[in-house]
Amino acid sequence: MLTNVRSDRVRSVRSLSRRSVRERTGRFVVDGPQGVREAIRYAVERVDDLYVTTAALERHADLVDAARQVGIRVHETDDAVLAAMSDTESPQGLLAVVASAPVTLAAVLASAPRLLVLLSNVRDPGNAGTVIRGADAFGADAVLVTDGSVDVLAPKVVRSTVGSIFHLPVVAGLDVAATLDALAAAGIRTLAADGTGETLLPDVDTRTPHAWVMGNEAWGLPAEIRDRCTDVVRVPISERVESLNLAMAATVCLAASSGATHRG
Amino acid sequence: MLTNVRSDRVRSVRSLSRRSVRERTGRFVVDGPQGVREAIRYAVERVDDLYVTTAALERHADLVDAARQVGIRVHETDDAVLAAMSDTESPQGLLAVVASAPVTLAAVLASAPRLLVLLSNVRDPGNAGTVIRGADAFGADAVLVTDGSVDVLAPKVVRSTVGSIFHLPVVAGLDVAATLDALAAAGIRTLAADGTGETLLPDVDTRTPHAWVMGNEAWGLPAEIRDRCTDVVRVPISERVESLNLAMAATVCLAASSGATHRG
Repeated sequence: MLTNVRSDRVRSVRSLSRRSVRERTGRFVVDGPQGVREAIRYAVERVDDLYVTTAALERHADLVDAARQVGIRVHETDDAVLAAMSDTESPQGLLAVVASAPVTLAAVLASAPRLLVLLSNVRDPGNAGTVIRGADAFGADAVLVTDGSVDVLAPKVVRSTVGSIFHLPVVAGLDVAATLDALAAAGIRTLAADGTGETLLPDVDTRTPHAWVMGNEAWGLPAEIRDRCTDVVRVPISERVESLNLAMAATVCLAASSGATHRG
Repeated sequence: MLTNVRSDRVRSVRSLSRRSVRERTGRFVVDGPQGVREAIRYAVERVDDLYVTTAALERHADLVDAARQVGIRVHETDDAVLAAMSDTESPQGLLAVVASAPVTLAAVLASAPRLLVLLSNVRDPGNAGTVIRGADAFGADAVLVTDGSVDVLAPKVVRSTVGSIFHLPVVAGLDVAATLDALAAAGIRTLAADGTGETLLPDVDTRTPHAWVMGNEAWGLPAEIRDRCTDVVRVPISERVESLNLAMAATVCLAASSGATHRG
Protein backbone atom coordinates (compact mmCIF):
# COMPACT_ATOMS: atom_id res chain seq x y z
CA MET A 1 0.00 0.00 0.00
CA LEU A 2 1.45 3.34 -1.08
CA THR A 3 0.88 5.96 1.62
CA ASN A 4 3.68 8.48 1.16
CA VAL A 5 2.40 11.44 -0.83
CA ARG A 6 5.94 12.82 -1.02
CA SER A 7 7.51 9.75 -2.60
CA ASP A 8 9.42 9.95 -5.87
CA ARG A 9 6.79 7.76 -7.47
CA VAL A 10 3.95 10.10 -6.61
CA ARG A 11 5.98 13.06 -7.78
CA SER A 12 6.85 11.32 -11.00
CA VAL A 13 3.23 10.41 -11.84
CA ARG A 14 2.05 13.89 -10.89
CA SER A 15 4.68 15.47 -13.13
CA LEU A 16 2.96 13.86 -16.14
CA SER A 17 0.41 16.65 -15.94
CA ARG A 18 3.15 18.78 -17.59
CA ARG A 19 3.45 18.58 -21.36
CA SER A 20 7.26 18.72 -21.29
CA VAL A 21 7.43 15.71 -18.98
CA ARG A 22 4.96 13.74 -21.12
CA GLU A 23 7.03 14.48 -24.20
CA ARG A 24 10.34 13.56 -22.53
CA THR A 25 9.06 10.32 -20.99
CA GLY A 26 6.58 9.24 -23.66
CA ARG A 27 4.03 8.59 -20.91
CA PHE A 28 0.65 10.01 -19.94
CA VAL A 29 -2.01 9.50 -17.28
CA VAL A 30 -5.47 8.00 -17.69
CA ASP A 31 -7.80 8.83 -14.85
CA GLY A 32 -11.03 7.07 -13.91
CA PRO A 33 -12.50 3.63 -14.52
CA GLN A 34 -13.87 4.20 -18.03
CA GLY A 35 -10.58 5.42 -19.47
CA VAL A 36 -8.57 2.75 -17.65
CA ARG A 37 -10.93 0.04 -18.89
CA GLU A 38 -10.54 1.12 -22.51
CA ALA A 39 -6.75 1.35 -22.11
CA ILE A 40 -6.67 -2.25 -20.92
CA ARG A 41 -9.03 -3.36 -23.68
CA TYR A 42 -7.44 -1.55 -26.60
CA ALA A 43 -3.87 -0.69 -25.61
CA VAL A 44 -2.90 -3.23 -22.98
CA GLU A 45 0.72 -3.45 -24.14
CA ARG A 46 1.12 0.26 -23.40
CA VAL A 47 -0.21 0.26 -19.83
CA ASP A 48 2.73 0.44 -17.39
CA ASP A 49 1.20 0.81 -13.96
CA LEU A 50 -2.23 0.92 -12.42
CA TYR A 51 -2.82 2.82 -9.17
CA VAL A 52 -5.98 2.09 -7.26
CA THR A 53 -7.40 3.04 -3.87
CA THR A 54 -8.75 0.41 -1.49
CA ALA A 55 -12.32 1.54 -2.15
CA ALA A 56 -11.85 1.46 -5.94
CA LEU A 57 -10.22 -1.95 -5.67
CA GLU A 58 -13.53 -3.30 -4.39
CA ARG A 59 -15.72 -1.26 -6.68
CA HIS A 60 -13.78 -2.21 -9.81
CA ALA A 61 -12.56 -5.68 -8.87
CA ASP A 62 -13.17 -7.03 -12.39
CA LEU A 63 -11.09 -4.29 -13.92
CA VAL A 64 -8.21 -4.75 -11.48
CA ASP A 65 -8.30 -8.53 -11.97
CA ALA A 66 -8.18 -8.08 -15.73
CA ALA A 67 -5.18 -5.79 -15.34
CA ARG A 68 -3.35 -8.26 -13.10
CA GLN A 69 -4.04 -11.16 -15.46
CA VAL A 70 -2.35 -9.40 -18.35
CA GLY A 71 0.66 -8.53 -16.22
CA ILE A 72 0.03 -4.87 -15.47
CA ARG A 73 1.66 -3.77 -12.21
CA VAL A 74 -1.16 -2.92 -9.80
CA HIS A 75 -0.37 -0.66 -6.83
CA GLU A 76 -2.82 -0.14 -4.01
CA THR A 77 -2.73 3.40 -2.63
CA ASP A 78 -4.50 5.36 0.03
CA ASP A 79 -6.84 8.18 -1.02
CA ALA A 80 -4.24 10.89 -0.40
CA VAL A 81 -1.66 9.29 -2.70
CA LEU A 82 -4.14 8.84 -5.53
CA ALA A 83 -5.36 12.42 -5.10
CA ALA A 84 -1.75 13.63 -5.20
CA MET A 85 -1.08 11.72 -8.41
CA SER A 86 -4.22 12.96 -10.17
CA ASP A 87 -4.75 16.45 -11.52
CA THR A 88 -8.52 16.31 -11.10
CA GLU A 89 -10.36 17.69 -8.11
CA SER A 90 -12.49 14.59 -7.73
CA PRO A 91 -10.32 11.58 -8.59
CA GLN A 92 -12.26 8.37 -9.05
CA GLY A 93 -9.79 6.10 -7.29
CA LEU A 94 -8.20 4.55 -10.34
CA LEU A 95 -5.38 5.86 -12.51
CA ALA A 96 -3.03 4.32 -15.07
CA VAL A 97 0.26 5.42 -16.55
CA VAL A 98 0.31 4.61 -20.25
CA ALA A 99 2.95 4.88 -22.96
CA SER A 100 2.00 7.15 -25.84
CA ALA A 101 1.74 5.64 -29.30
CA PRO A 102 3.02 8.05 -31.90
CA VAL A 103 1.11 7.63 -35.17
CA THR A 104 2.07 9.32 -38.40
CA LEU A 105 -0.16 10.96 -40.97
CA ALA A 106 1.41 8.66 -43.58
CA ALA A 107 0.24 5.60 -41.65
CA VAL A 108 -3.28 6.99 -41.40
CA LEU A 109 -3.39 7.78 -45.12
CA ALA A 110 -2.06 4.32 -45.98
CA SER A 111 -5.14 2.83 -44.30
CA ALA A 112 -7.43 4.42 -46.92
CA PRO A 113 -9.49 6.43 -44.44
CA ARG A 114 -13.02 7.49 -45.38
CA LEU A 115 -13.74 9.96 -42.57
CA LEU A 116 -11.23 12.15 -40.74
CA VAL A 117 -11.23 15.21 -38.50
CA LEU A 118 -8.50 17.82 -38.55
CA LEU A 119 -8.36 20.14 -35.52
CA SER A 120 -6.51 23.35 -36.24
CA ASN A 121 -5.47 25.50 -33.27
CA VAL A 122 -8.01 23.97 -30.95
CA ARG A 123 -7.06 25.11 -27.46
CA ASP A 124 -9.68 23.93 -25.02
CA PRO A 125 -8.99 20.47 -23.57
CA GLY A 126 -12.67 19.66 -23.10
CA ASN A 127 -13.46 20.57 -26.71
CA ALA A 128 -10.59 18.51 -28.09
CA GLY A 129 -11.60 15.52 -25.98
CA THR A 130 -15.26 15.81 -26.93
CA VAL A 131 -14.37 15.95 -30.63
CA ILE A 132 -12.20 12.83 -30.29
CA ARG A 133 -15.10 11.09 -28.53
CA GLY A 134 -17.50 12.21 -31.27
CA ALA A 135 -15.09 11.12 -34.02
CA ASP A 136 -14.95 7.69 -32.38
CA ALA A 137 -18.72 7.48 -31.90
CA PHE A 138 -19.41 8.37 -35.52
CA GLY A 139 -16.83 6.05 -37.03
CA ALA A 140 -14.03 8.42 -38.05
CA ASP A 141 -10.80 6.64 -38.96
CA ALA A 142 -8.50 9.10 -37.18
CA VAL A 143 -8.24 12.55 -35.64
CA LEU A 144 -5.48 14.87 -36.89
CA VAL A 145 -4.29 17.74 -34.70
CA THR A 146 -2.13 20.71 -35.72
CA ASP A 147 0.94 21.86 -33.83
CA GLY A 148 -0.73 24.99 -32.41
CA SER A 149 -3.35 22.94 -30.61
CA VAL A 150 -3.77 21.65 -27.08
CA ASP A 151 -1.74 18.51 -26.26
CA VAL A 152 -4.10 15.59 -26.80
CA LEU A 153 -2.40 13.65 -24.00
CA ALA A 154 -3.12 16.36 -21.41
CA PRO A 155 -5.12 14.87 -18.52
CA LYS A 156 -8.25 16.91 -19.24
CA VAL A 157 -8.28 15.91 -22.91
CA VAL A 158 -7.76 12.24 -22.10
CA ARG A 159 -10.53 12.40 -19.49
CA SER A 160 -12.95 14.10 -21.89
CA THR A 161 -12.47 11.34 -24.47
CA VAL A 162 -13.81 8.79 -21.91
CA GLY A 163 -11.54 6.11 -23.42
CA SER A 164 -11.96 7.05 -27.07
CA ILE A 165 -8.30 8.13 -27.15
CA PHE A 166 -7.55 4.36 -27.24
CA HIS A 167 -10.04 3.56 -29.99
CA LEU A 168 -8.70 5.47 -32.95
CA PRO A 169 -5.38 6.98 -34.08
CA VAL A 170 -4.77 10.56 -33.00
CA VAL A 171 -1.95 12.22 -34.92
CA ALA A 172 -0.59 15.36 -33.27
CA GLY A 173 1.88 18.13 -34.09
CA LEU A 174 0.88 18.51 -37.74
CA ASP A 175 1.50 21.51 -39.95
CA VAL A 176 -1.93 22.54 -41.21
CA ALA A 177 -0.96 23.52 -44.78
CA ALA A 178 1.15 20.41 -45.37
CA THR A 179 -1.64 18.25 -43.95
CA LEU A 180 -4.27 19.77 -46.23
CA ASP A 181 -1.96 19.15 -49.20
CA ALA A 182 -1.36 15.54 -48.14
CA LEU A 183 -5.10 14.94 -47.76
CA ALA A 184 -5.78 16.41 -51.20
CA ALA A 185 -3.02 14.27 -52.72
CA ALA A 186 -4.63 11.23 -51.14
CA GLY A 187 -7.97 12.07 -52.77
CA ILE A 188 -9.64 13.08 -49.52
CA ARG A 189 -11.88 16.14 -49.76
CA THR A 190 -11.22 18.70 -47.05
CA LEU A 191 -14.35 20.37 -45.67
CA ALA A 192 -13.78 23.48 -43.58
CA ALA A 193 -16.60 23.74 -41.05
CA ASP A 194 -17.17 27.46 -40.77
CA GLY A 195 -20.04 29.90 -40.38
CA THR A 196 -18.90 31.71 -43.54
CA GLY A 197 -19.47 28.63 -45.72
CA GLU A 198 -21.79 28.87 -48.70
CA THR A 199 -22.31 25.13 -48.92
CA LEU A 200 -24.87 23.90 -46.40
CA LEU A 201 -24.26 20.69 -44.48
CA PRO A 202 -27.31 18.90 -45.97
CA ASP A 203 -25.81 19.43 -49.46
CA VAL A 204 -22.48 17.80 -48.69
CA ASP A 205 -21.73 14.49 -50.39
CA THR A 206 -20.74 12.32 -47.44
CA ARG A 207 -20.32 9.10 -49.45
CA THR A 208 -16.75 9.69 -50.62
CA PRO A 209 -13.68 10.14 -48.38
CA HIS A 210 -13.56 13.48 -46.62
CA ALA A 211 -12.02 15.27 -43.67
CA TRP A 212 -13.78 17.85 -41.51
CA VAL A 213 -11.48 20.77 -40.72
CA MET A 214 -12.35 22.52 -37.47
CA GLY A 215 -10.78 25.79 -36.30
CA ASN A 216 -10.11 27.57 -33.05
CA GLU A 217 -12.93 28.03 -30.50
CA ALA A 218 -12.84 31.82 -30.63
CA TRP A 219 -11.64 32.87 -34.07
CA GLY A 220 -12.53 29.86 -36.24
CA LEU A 221 -10.53 29.09 -39.37
CA PRO A 222 -8.48 31.89 -40.96
CA ALA A 223 -9.17 32.62 -44.64
CA GLU A 224 -5.85 31.15 -45.79
CA ILE A 225 -6.81 27.78 -44.33
CA ARG A 226 -10.39 27.91 -45.63
CA ASP A 227 -9.07 28.74 -49.09
CA ARG A 228 -6.90 25.63 -49.10
CA CYS A 229 -9.89 23.39 -48.39
CA THR A 230 -12.03 21.70 -51.03
CA ASP A 231 -15.15 23.36 -49.66
CA VAL A 232 -16.35 25.56 -46.80
CA VAL A 233 -19.45 24.12 -45.15
CA ARG A 234 -21.93 25.79 -42.83
CA VAL A 235 -24.33 24.05 -40.46
CA PRO A 236 -27.64 25.86 -41.05
CA ILE A 237 -28.72 27.44 -37.78
CA SER A 238 -31.15 30.12 -36.64
CA GLU A 239 -30.00 33.60 -37.60
CA ARG A 240 -30.41 34.71 -33.97
CA VAL A 241 -27.52 32.44 -33.02
CA GLU A 242 -24.03 33.66 -33.84
CA SER A 243 -22.41 30.23 -33.95
CA LEU A 244 -22.36 26.72 -32.61
CA ASN A 245 -19.50 25.92 -30.30
CA LEU A 246 -16.70 23.82 -31.71
CA ALA A 247 -17.71 20.53 -30.12
CA MET A 248 -21.34 20.93 -31.20
CA ALA A 249 -20.42 21.80 -34.79
CA ALA A 250 -17.99 18.89 -35.05
CA THR A 251 -20.55 16.51 -33.56
CA VAL A 252 -23.24 17.53 -36.03
CA CYS A 253 -20.90 17.30 -39.06
CA LEU A 254 -19.56 13.90 -37.99
CA ALA A 255 -23.06 12.59 -37.25
CA ALA A 256 -24.19 13.68 -40.72
CA SER A 257 -21.14 12.00 -42.31
CA SER A 258 -21.79 8.75 -40.49
CA GLY A 259 -25.43 8.52 -41.48
CA ALA A 260 -26.46 8.77 -37.82
CA THR A 261 -29.07 11.40 -38.63
CA HIS A 262 -30.60 10.19 -41.88
CA ARG A 263 -30.77 7.34 -44.36
CA GLY A 264 -28.05 7.69 -47.02
CA MET B 1 -17.34 54.90 -10.52
CA LEU B 2 -18.03 52.05 -8.09
CA THR B 3 -14.86 51.12 -6.19
CA ASN B 4 -16.04 49.65 -2.89
CA VAL B 5 -16.02 45.87 -3.14
CA ARG B 6 -17.74 45.69 0.26
CA SER B 7 -20.71 47.85 -0.65
CA ASP B 8 -24.27 46.60 -0.27
CA ARG B 9 -24.70 46.83 -4.01
CA VAL B 10 -21.77 44.51 -4.72
CA ARG B 11 -22.97 42.11 -2.07
CA SER B 12 -26.48 42.14 -3.47
CA VAL B 13 -25.37 41.41 -7.05
CA ARG B 14 -22.99 38.72 -5.85
CA SER B 15 -25.73 37.06 -3.82
CA LEU B 16 -27.58 36.34 -7.07
CA SER B 17 -25.20 33.42 -7.58
CA ARG B 18 -27.40 31.68 -4.97
CA ARG B 19 -30.57 30.02 -6.19
CA SER B 20 -32.57 31.02 -3.12
CA VAL B 21 -31.75 34.70 -3.70
CA ARG B 22 -32.62 34.48 -7.39
CA GLU B 23 -35.96 32.93 -6.52
CA ARG B 24 -36.75 35.49 -3.80
CA THR B 25 -35.77 38.53 -5.87
CA GLY B 26 -36.78 37.30 -9.33
CA ARG B 27 -33.42 38.51 -10.65
CA PHE B 28 -30.37 36.86 -12.21
CA VAL B 29 -26.97 37.85 -13.57
CA VAL B 30 -25.80 37.85 -17.18
CA ASP B 31 -22.05 37.93 -17.53
CA GLY B 32 -20.03 38.87 -20.60
CA PRO B 33 -20.68 40.93 -23.74
CA GLN B 34 -22.51 38.30 -25.79
CA GLY B 35 -25.08 37.53 -23.13
CA VAL B 36 -25.56 41.21 -22.27
CA ARG B 37 -26.01 42.10 -25.96
CA GLU B 38 -28.73 39.49 -26.40
CA ALA B 39 -30.44 40.61 -23.18
CA ILE B 40 -30.61 44.17 -24.52
CA ARG B 41 -31.80 42.98 -27.94
CA TYR B 42 -34.42 40.49 -26.84
CA ALA B 43 -35.37 41.33 -23.25
CA VAL B 44 -34.58 45.00 -22.82
CA GLU B 45 -37.56 45.68 -20.56
CA ARG B 46 -36.16 43.17 -18.09
CA VAL B 47 -32.63 44.58 -17.81
CA ASP B 48 -32.31 46.52 -14.53
CA ASP B 49 -28.67 47.52 -14.27
CA LEU B 50 -25.53 47.21 -16.34
CA TYR B 51 -22.12 47.14 -14.64
CA VAL B 52 -19.08 47.78 -16.79
CA THR B 53 -15.37 48.31 -16.16
CA THR B 54 -13.52 51.23 -17.70
CA ALA B 55 -11.73 48.93 -20.13
CA ALA B 56 -14.96 47.21 -21.19
CA LEU B 57 -16.64 50.62 -21.55
CA GLU B 58 -14.20 51.40 -24.37
CA ARG B 59 -14.18 47.93 -25.89
CA HIS B 60 -17.98 47.68 -25.97
CA ALA B 61 -18.92 51.34 -26.43
CA ASP B 62 -21.70 50.47 -28.90
CA LEU B 63 -23.27 48.08 -26.44
CA VAL B 64 -23.11 50.52 -23.54
CA ASP B 65 -24.52 53.31 -25.71
CA ALA B 66 -27.38 51.07 -26.77
CA ALA B 67 -28.09 50.28 -23.12
CA ARG B 68 -28.07 53.97 -22.15
CA GLN B 69 -30.37 54.90 -25.02
CA VAL B 70 -33.05 52.51 -23.86
CA GLY B 71 -32.81 53.78 -20.29
CA ILE B 72 -30.83 51.01 -18.64
CA ARG B 73 -28.88 52.25 -15.61
CA VAL B 74 -25.19 51.96 -16.51
CA HIS B 75 -22.65 51.87 -13.64
CA GLU B 76 -18.93 52.17 -14.25
CA THR B 77 -16.90 50.00 -11.88
CA ASP B 78 -13.26 49.23 -11.29
CA ASP B 79 -11.98 45.72 -12.06
CA ALA B 80 -12.16 44.61 -8.42
CA VAL B 81 -15.84 45.50 -8.07
CA LEU B 82 -16.81 43.71 -11.26
CA ALA B 83 -14.77 40.67 -10.23
CA ALA B 84 -16.49 40.69 -6.83
CA MET B 85 -19.92 40.82 -8.47
CA SER B 86 -19.21 38.01 -10.90
CA ASP B 87 -18.96 34.34 -10.04
CA THR B 88 -16.59 33.56 -12.91
CA GLU B 89 -12.82 33.42 -12.54
CA SER B 90 -12.22 35.50 -15.65
CA PRO B 91 -14.97 38.14 -15.81
CA GLN B 92 -15.20 39.95 -19.12
CA GLY B 93 -15.84 43.40 -17.71
CA LEU B 94 -19.55 43.56 -18.37
CA LEU B 95 -22.42 42.25 -16.30
CA ALA B 96 -26.16 42.87 -16.20
CA VAL B 97 -28.84 42.20 -13.61
CA VAL B 98 -31.98 40.99 -15.35
CA ALA B 99 -35.48 40.16 -14.14
CA SER B 100 -36.54 36.59 -14.77
CA ALA B 101 -39.55 35.98 -17.01
CA PRO B 102 -41.58 33.07 -15.74
CA VAL B 103 -43.19 31.21 -18.63
CA THR B 104 -45.75 28.47 -18.20
CA LEU B 105 -46.04 25.18 -20.04
CA ALA B 106 -49.60 26.18 -20.93
CA ALA B 107 -48.34 29.31 -22.71
CA VAL B 108 -45.80 27.27 -24.66
CA LEU B 109 -48.42 24.71 -25.68
CA ALA B 110 -50.82 27.47 -26.72
CA SER B 111 -48.23 28.62 -29.28
CA ALA B 112 -48.57 25.34 -31.23
CA PRO B 113 -44.90 24.36 -30.88
CA ARG B 114 -43.37 22.00 -33.43
CA LEU B 115 -40.07 21.20 -31.73
CA LEU B 116 -39.39 21.10 -27.98
CA VAL B 117 -36.77 19.75 -25.61
CA LEU B 118 -37.57 18.40 -22.16
CA LEU B 119 -34.60 18.11 -19.78
CA SER B 120 -35.27 15.68 -16.96
CA ASN B 121 -32.91 15.74 -13.98
CA VAL B 122 -30.13 17.42 -15.89
CA ARG B 123 -27.62 18.56 -13.28
CA ASP B 124 -24.57 19.98 -15.03
CA PRO B 125 -24.84 23.73 -15.73
CA GLY B 126 -22.66 23.54 -18.85
CA ASN B 127 -24.77 20.76 -20.32
CA ALA B 128 -28.03 22.56 -19.63
CA GLY B 129 -26.68 25.77 -21.18
CA THR B 130 -25.32 23.98 -24.23
CA VAL B 131 -28.66 22.24 -24.81
CA ILE B 132 -30.50 25.58 -24.57
CA ARG B 133 -28.03 27.04 -27.09
CA GLY B 134 -28.50 24.04 -29.38
CA ALA B 135 -32.29 24.23 -29.06
CA ASP B 136 -32.10 27.88 -30.11
CA ALA B 137 -29.69 27.17 -32.98
CA PHE B 138 -31.88 24.42 -34.39
CA GLY B 139 -35.14 26.29 -34.09
CA ALA B 140 -36.81 24.67 -31.10
CA ASP B 141 -39.82 26.57 -29.81
CA ALA B 142 -39.01 26.18 -26.11
CA VAL B 143 -36.97 24.24 -23.58
CA LEU B 144 -38.79 22.53 -20.72
CA VAL B 145 -36.93 21.64 -17.52
CA THR B 146 -38.06 19.36 -14.71
CA ASP B 147 -37.95 20.28 -11.05
CA GLY B 148 -35.01 17.99 -10.21
CA SER B 149 -32.73 19.81 -12.65
CA VAL B 150 -30.13 22.52 -12.34
CA ASP B 151 -31.53 26.07 -12.05
CA VAL B 152 -31.48 27.47 -15.59
CA LEU B 153 -30.80 30.95 -14.23
CA ALA B 154 -27.59 29.86 -12.47
CA PRO B 155 -24.65 31.95 -13.73
CA LYS B 156 -22.90 29.02 -15.41
CA VAL B 157 -26.03 27.96 -17.27
CA VAL B 158 -26.75 31.51 -18.44
CA ARG B 159 -23.12 31.90 -19.57
CA SER B 160 -23.16 28.59 -21.46
CA THR B 161 -26.24 29.66 -23.43
CA VAL B 162 -24.26 32.64 -24.84
CA GLY B 163 -27.45 34.70 -24.99
CA SER B 164 -29.80 31.96 -26.16
CA ILE B 165 -31.58 32.12 -22.79
CA PHE B 166 -33.15 35.34 -24.15
CA HIS B 167 -34.15 33.86 -27.50
CA LEU B 168 -36.64 31.20 -26.56
CA PRO B 169 -38.94 30.39 -23.63
CA VAL B 170 -37.39 28.20 -20.95
CA VAL B 171 -39.98 26.72 -18.59
CA ALA B 172 -38.52 25.39 -15.33
CA GLY B 173 -39.72 23.45 -12.30
CA LEU B 174 -41.93 21.01 -14.20
CA ASP B 175 -43.13 17.63 -13.02
CA VAL B 176 -41.92 15.16 -15.61
CA ALA B 177 -44.93 12.83 -15.66
CA ALA B 178 -47.45 15.67 -15.81
CA THR B 179 -45.44 17.32 -18.57
CA LEU B 180 -45.32 14.16 -20.67
CA ASP B 181 -49.09 13.84 -20.26
CA ALA B 182 -49.63 17.47 -21.26
CA LEU B 183 -47.45 17.06 -24.35
CA ALA B 184 -49.33 13.93 -25.37
CA ALA B 185 -52.68 15.68 -24.86
CA ALA B 186 -51.43 18.49 -27.11
CA GLY B 187 -50.62 16.01 -29.87
CA ILE B 188 -46.86 16.35 -29.46
CA ARG B 189 -44.93 13.09 -29.74
CA THR B 190 -42.41 12.59 -26.94
CA LEU B 191 -39.14 11.00 -28.02
CA ALA B 192 -36.91 9.73 -25.24
CA ALA B 193 -33.28 9.99 -26.39
CA ASP B 194 -31.67 6.94 -24.84
CA GLY B 195 -29.07 4.33 -25.70
CA THR B 196 -31.64 1.60 -25.03
CA GLY B 197 -33.92 2.82 -27.83
CA GLU B 198 -34.90 0.42 -30.60
CA THR B 199 -35.87 3.19 -33.00
CA LEU B 200 -32.83 4.72 -34.71
CA LEU B 201 -32.61 8.47 -35.15
CA PRO B 202 -32.60 8.28 -38.98
CA ASP B 203 -36.00 6.51 -38.83
CA VAL B 204 -37.72 9.21 -36.78
CA ASP B 205 -40.43 11.23 -38.48
CA THR B 206 -39.31 14.78 -37.75
CA ARG B 207 -42.05 16.49 -39.79
CA THR B 208 -44.76 16.47 -37.13
CA PRO B 209 -44.59 18.14 -33.70
CA HIS B 210 -42.31 16.35 -31.27
CA ALA B 211 -40.33 16.86 -28.08
CA TRP B 212 -36.93 15.34 -27.35
CA VAL B 213 -36.76 14.05 -23.78
CA MET B 214 -33.21 14.02 -22.38
CA GLY B 215 -32.22 12.42 -19.08
CA ASN B 216 -29.54 12.81 -16.46
CA GLU B 217 -25.86 12.92 -17.49
CA ALA B 218 -24.91 9.81 -15.55
CA TRP B 219 -27.94 7.58 -15.32
CA GLY B 220 -30.02 8.65 -18.34
CA LEU B 221 -33.80 8.28 -18.31
CA PRO B 222 -35.37 5.80 -15.88
CA ALA B 223 -37.64 3.14 -17.37
CA GLU B 224 -40.80 4.70 -15.97
CA ILE B 225 -40.12 7.90 -17.90
CA ARG B 226 -39.10 6.10 -21.10
CA ASP B 227 -42.30 4.04 -20.89
CA ARG B 228 -44.41 7.20 -20.79
CA CYS B 229 -42.85 8.49 -24.01
CA THR B 230 -44.21 7.87 -27.50
CA ASP B 231 -40.93 6.33 -28.59
CA VAL B 232 -37.39 5.66 -27.36
CA VAL B 233 -34.80 6.75 -29.90
CA ARG B 234 -31.12 5.86 -30.14
CA VAL B 235 -28.47 7.77 -32.03
CA PRO B 236 -26.55 5.05 -33.92
CA ILE B 237 -22.94 5.11 -32.76
CA SER B 238 -19.93 2.83 -32.87
CA GLU B 239 -20.30 -0.15 -30.57
CA ARG B 240 -16.93 0.67 -29.00
CA VAL B 241 -18.44 3.84 -27.57
CA GLU B 242 -20.65 3.45 -24.51
CA SER B 243 -22.64 6.63 -25.04
CA LEU B 244 -22.65 10.18 -26.28
CA ASN B 245 -22.66 12.82 -23.62
CA LEU B 246 -25.92 14.64 -23.02
CA ALA B 247 -25.06 17.81 -24.90
CA MET B 248 -23.78 15.89 -27.93
CA ALA B 249 -26.84 13.63 -28.07
CA ALA B 250 -29.23 16.56 -27.75
CA THR B 251 -27.35 18.51 -30.42
CA VAL B 252 -27.49 15.63 -32.90
CA CYS B 253 -31.20 14.96 -32.28
CA LEU B 254 -32.10 18.65 -32.58
CA ALA B 255 -29.97 19.07 -35.71
CA ALA B 256 -31.73 16.09 -37.30
CA SER B 257 -35.15 17.52 -36.35
CA SER B 258 -34.33 20.89 -37.86
CA GLY B 259 -33.14 19.50 -41.19
CA ALA B 260 -29.64 20.87 -40.53
CA THR B 261 -28.07 17.57 -41.49
CA HIS B 262 -30.11 16.45 -44.47
CA ARG B 263 -32.77 17.43 -46.97
CA GLY B 264 -36.23 16.51 -45.61
